[in-house]
Amino acid sequence: MDAAVDAARELRQLPKAKIAEFLEVYADKIDAAKDALVDAAFAETGLARSPRLADVELPRTSNQLRAAAAACRSGNWAMATIDTKSGIRSCYEALGPIVVFGPNNFPFAFGSVSGGDFAAAIAAGNPVIGKANSSHPETTRLFADLALQSIEQTGLPASTVQLIYRTSHADGERLVSDPRVGATGYTGSRSAGLKLKAAADAAGKPIYLELSSVNPVVMTPAALQQRGEEITNDFVTSVLMGAGQFCTNPGMVLLIADESSEKFVAAVKTRFESTASGTLLSPAVSKGLSGSVKTLCDFGAELLTGGGEPESRRCAYANTLLRVDGKTFLGNPEGFQTEAFGNASLMVVASDLDELTEVISQLEGNLTGGVYSAADESDEAVYEKIAFELIPKVGRVLNDKMPTGVAVSPAMNHGGPYPATGHPGFTAVGVPASLVRFGKLTSYDNVRESRLPALLQDASPTAETWRNINGTWTQGDV
Amino acid sequence: MDAAVDAARELRQLPKAKIAEFLEVYADKIDAAKDALVDAAFAETGLARSPRLADVELPRTSNQLRAAAAACRSGNWAMATIDTKSGIRSCYEALGPIVVFGPNNFPFAFGSVSGGDFAAAIAAGNPVIGKANSSHPETTRLFADLALQSIEQTGLPASTVQLIYRTSHADGERLVSDPRVGATGYTGSRSAGLKLKAAADAAGKPIYLELSSVNPVVMTPAALQQRGEEITNDFVTSVLMGAGQFCTNPGMVLLIADESSEKFVAAVKTRFESTASGTLLSPAVSKGLSGSVKTLCDFGAELLTGGGEPESRRCAYANTLLRVDGKTFLGNPEGFQTEAFGNASLMVVASDLDELTEVISQLEGNLTGGVYSAADESDEAVYEKIAFELIPKVGRVLNDKMPTGVAVSPAMNHGGPYPATGHPGFTAVGVPASLVRFGKLTSYDNVRESRLPALLQDASPTAETWRNINGTWTQGDV
Repeated sequence: MDAAVDAARELRQLPKAKIAEFLEVYADKIDAAKDALVDAAFAETGLARSPRLADVELPRTSNQLRAAAAACRSGNWAMATIDTKSGIRSCYEALGPIVVFGPNNFPFAFGSVSGGDFAAAIAAGNPVIGKANSSHPETTRLFADLALQSIEQTGLPASTVQLIYRTSHADGERLVSDPRVGATGYTGSRSAGLKLKAAADAAGKPIYLELSSVNPVVMTPAALQQRGEEITNDFVTSVLMGAGQFCTNPGMVLLIADESSEKFVAAVKTRFESTASGTLLSPAVSKGLSGSVKTLCDFGAELLTGGGEPESRRCAYANTLLRVDGKTFLGNPEGFQTEAFGNASLMVVASDLDELTEVISQLEGNLTGGVYSAADESDEAVYEKIAFELIPKVGRVLNDKMPTGVAVSPAMNHGGPYPATGHPGFTAVGVPASLVRFGKLTSYDNVRESRLPALLQDASPTAETWRNINGTWTQGDV
Repeated sequence: MDAAVDAARELRQLPKAKIAEFLEVYADKIDAAKDALVDAAFAETGLARSPRLADVELPRTSNQLRAAAAACRSGNWAMATIDTKSGIRSCYEALGPIVVFGPNNFPFAFGSVSGGDFAAAIAAGNPVIGKANSSHPETTRLFADLALQSIEQTGLPASTVQLIYRTSHADGERLVSDPRVGATGYTGSRSAGLKLKAAADAAGKPIYLELSSVNPVVMTPAALQQRGEEITNDFVTSVLMGAGQFCTNPGMVLLIADESSEKFVAAVKTRFESTASGTLLSPAVSKGLSGSVKTLCDFGAELLTGGGEPESRRCAYANTLLRVDGKTFLGNPEGFQTEAFGNASLMVVASDLDELTEVISQLEGNLTGGVYSAADESDEAVYEKIAFELIPKVGRVLNDKMPTGVAVSPAMNHGGPYPATGHPGFTAVGVPASLVRFGKLTSYDNVRESRLPALLQDASPTAETWRNINGTWTQGDV
C-alpha cells in the first residue's frame, strides 16, 4: 500500500500522455502474447478458445485498454467545466490507489490487472493493486508480467501495478478500508462482495460492486406468435453461451400463459436437451449451480429438464430449465430470484399482463432487462406497461435482443440498481464513463492560471479534448 | 412513502417542462413571500436579515430553483449519450423518492423543501420527503405551504413534496434504508449523519452526506509580508460571518513560524476582541462550540482569546482564537481537527515548510482548502509543495480567497473526500452536476426510437439541450 501511495504521487506529476502510452504499449504486448494468454486461460477456465478467448475476449481487452488510453490523453472522462465569470474551474482527477478484484468468468476483459476496472483506474491516473482471482492464477500472472514490462518500457513508477494472491476475508476487508486507498472495484459473488462493501462503507471508501443479476427477459405473446423460432434460437444461444457464465446471462424469462408461450417453453426444453452442456469454470461453479437449482425446486419451481448433481466425469452440469407460475413466484419473489450462475434459466409464466407487471414490480435490481414484442408494434400498449415497470429495475433495457453482448460503447451501462451493483449511477463498462468511478471531483476557485492542471488552463491540452466552457461544450480554448 | 412512490410514477410520465414549471412557480412564490420568510427565519435562527437572509440567502434560493428548472427542461444534467453505431443510447433518469435532511445553518438555501438538495432531486424528476430541521420549523412550514400552492397551480402530484418533523434516530434510519427510497441527501452533524449512512449503506441505498469540515487556509510568509493587513481583514470577515456557522468556515489556519505570521496572529486576536460576537443558531450550537474549544484546549491548544462558557444573556459565544504548534498538532492530528462549529478558529504554526506539509498530509477530507501566497509569485516553489499535499484532501482549492462564498456555478464543487462528505465524486451545489446524485443511469440498447425517452430520440427535445452523439457534444439532432 505504501508503494501504491508512492506511485500515486509520481503519477500525479506525470503528463497524461505518459500514462496513455503505458496503456497502449500494454495493449500491444497483450495482442502479441495472445497464444500464451489463450493457452493459459483455456487450461484454467475451460472457456472456448474460439469463439471466445482468442477472437472475442482478447481483442476486447486490448481495445478496452486503448480506449482508456485515448480518454486519458484527451481528458474526456474528466468533465472539465470552466466558468470564467465566477473564476471557478473543475474536473475529475486521480483519486488514489485503486484495488481491483476480478471475477472468475472473464479472465481477460475483467481481469484484475488487465480488465475494465484496471483500465479505468489507470487511465484516471491511479495505481492499481489487483487481487488475482484464484480460478485463473497463471493467466493473471502472465498479464502482470506484461504490465511490468510495459511499465519498464514507458518509465512509469514500478508500483503502478501490483498483484496479490489469496487474501483472507479479513485481509480483503482491511485492504478496501485502508485510509490510503482511493476506491475499490469488485466483480464477483454477492456474499463476498457485501462483506467488502460493509468494510469499505464503514471507512467512507467508495467501492463499486458488480454482484449478481438474473437479467429478466420478457417475451410477449405477439412476439412469440410472429417469430417464436427466431426468439427460441436467440435465447438458447445466449443462455448457453460460455456455459451460461455471463454476468448478463438471461437467467429468467417472463411469459404470459398462452399457446405461443407453451410452444416456446417446449422448444427451449428440446434444444436444452439436444445441446451438449458446456464446461464450467470450476467445481465450485457446478456445485453452486446445483445448489441454486435445488433451492429453486425446493421453493416450488418445476424442473423441466436438467437438474440433479454435477457431472462426475468433467466440470459440468446438465442444461437446466425450470418453470414457475406467476402466482407461486409472487408468493416468494426473493426466493425465486436466487441466481443460478451457469447454464440454467427459470421461466416465469404469468396468468395475464397484470400478473406479469406485478412480477416485474417485485424484481430486484438487475444489470439488464429485455423485452421481445411484436415487430409491427401491434402490442405497443403491452410493451408500454411492461417497460414502465421494468426500466426502474435495470441498468440496461433491451428490445428484441439478448443481453449477453456488452459492447464497449460510451453509451453502455454495465451497472444497475442494488443488488446488481452497489450504486445506480455508475457503469463498469464503457469509456469514458467507467473512469469517473476512480476520480475525485476538484474545483479550482480563483486559482492562478499557471497553477491549474493542463486540462483547465485556457488553452485546450489536445485537439480531441471536450470541455464545457460557460455552458457550451467545445473543443476550443477559453 | 407509498404516496411518494405514487408521485414518482406520475412524475415519470409528465413532460419535463411541467416539472420545470413547478420549480419556477415555486421560485416566484418564494420571492413574493420574502418578508414573511425572512421574519420567520430571523426569529428562529438569529441570522441577520441583511446582509444575509433577505439579500443573499433568499435570492440564492429562488435562483437555485430556477437554475434547476432550466437543467430539468433542457436535460443537460442527464449526460445524454448516443452511439448510433452500436444502437445504444444512455442518460440519467429519475431515481425514486428522495429524502432530504436540511441543516440548521441555511434555513433557505439548504432547507429540506427549498434548498439545493431539494431543487436537484425535483429537477431530476423525483418526489421529495423533507425532514424539517428542528431549529427552524416555522420557516420550513412556510416553504412547504408555498410548495403545495405551486404543486396545485401546476398540476403536479400532491405528494411530490412531503414534509415530516422530529423523527427519532431509529425512524430516520428506517426512512433512508426503505426499499422504496431512491436516495438521501443529508447536511448536518457528523454523528447523526454517520448513523444514517450506516443504515443506508447496509440497504444498498445511495446517501449523500455533507458532514463537517475545518476548511484549512494556508498563508505563506511572503503573502503575509506583502499584504498582511488585507489578509487579516479577509480572514476575520470570513471566519466571523454568520457567527462562523458556515460549512466552509475557515476553522483552521496553517502558518510557518516567522515574524509576519506572529504579526498576523496578533492582529487577528485584536480584531476578534474588538468585534462583537454574533448570535448563534441555538443553545445547542453554543454548547457544542464551548465543548469543542474545551476539547482543543485539553489536547494542548493555547487559548489566545475567547473560550469559556456560552454567554448567559443571549445565544452567543466569545470570538475564540486558538493556537497550536506544528509538532503538537502532529502528535494528535485527529484531535486537533475537532470541528469547532461557530466563531472560532485554530492557528497551526509549523516550524518550517516541511513541517507544514507534514501537517497538511495529516488532514482529513475537507470541503475546501485555501492558499494565500505572494502576488508576485516569488514563493511559487513553496506554493507548489503546499498545493501538492493539499489538493487531494479537499473538494475545492482556493487561491487568495476565503472559502465562505459558495457560488452556484456549474464548476462549483461543494463536496470533498470523506469525512467532509460521503463520496469524493459529487457536489451538493452547482447545477447541473448536483442533480446527477439523484439520477439512475439507464442504457437503451436496440430500443425502438419511438419508445426512447424524448432526450434520446433523434430529434433534440430543446434548442438548449447538449447531447454527446458519437463522441461529439452537440445541440443538434442525430
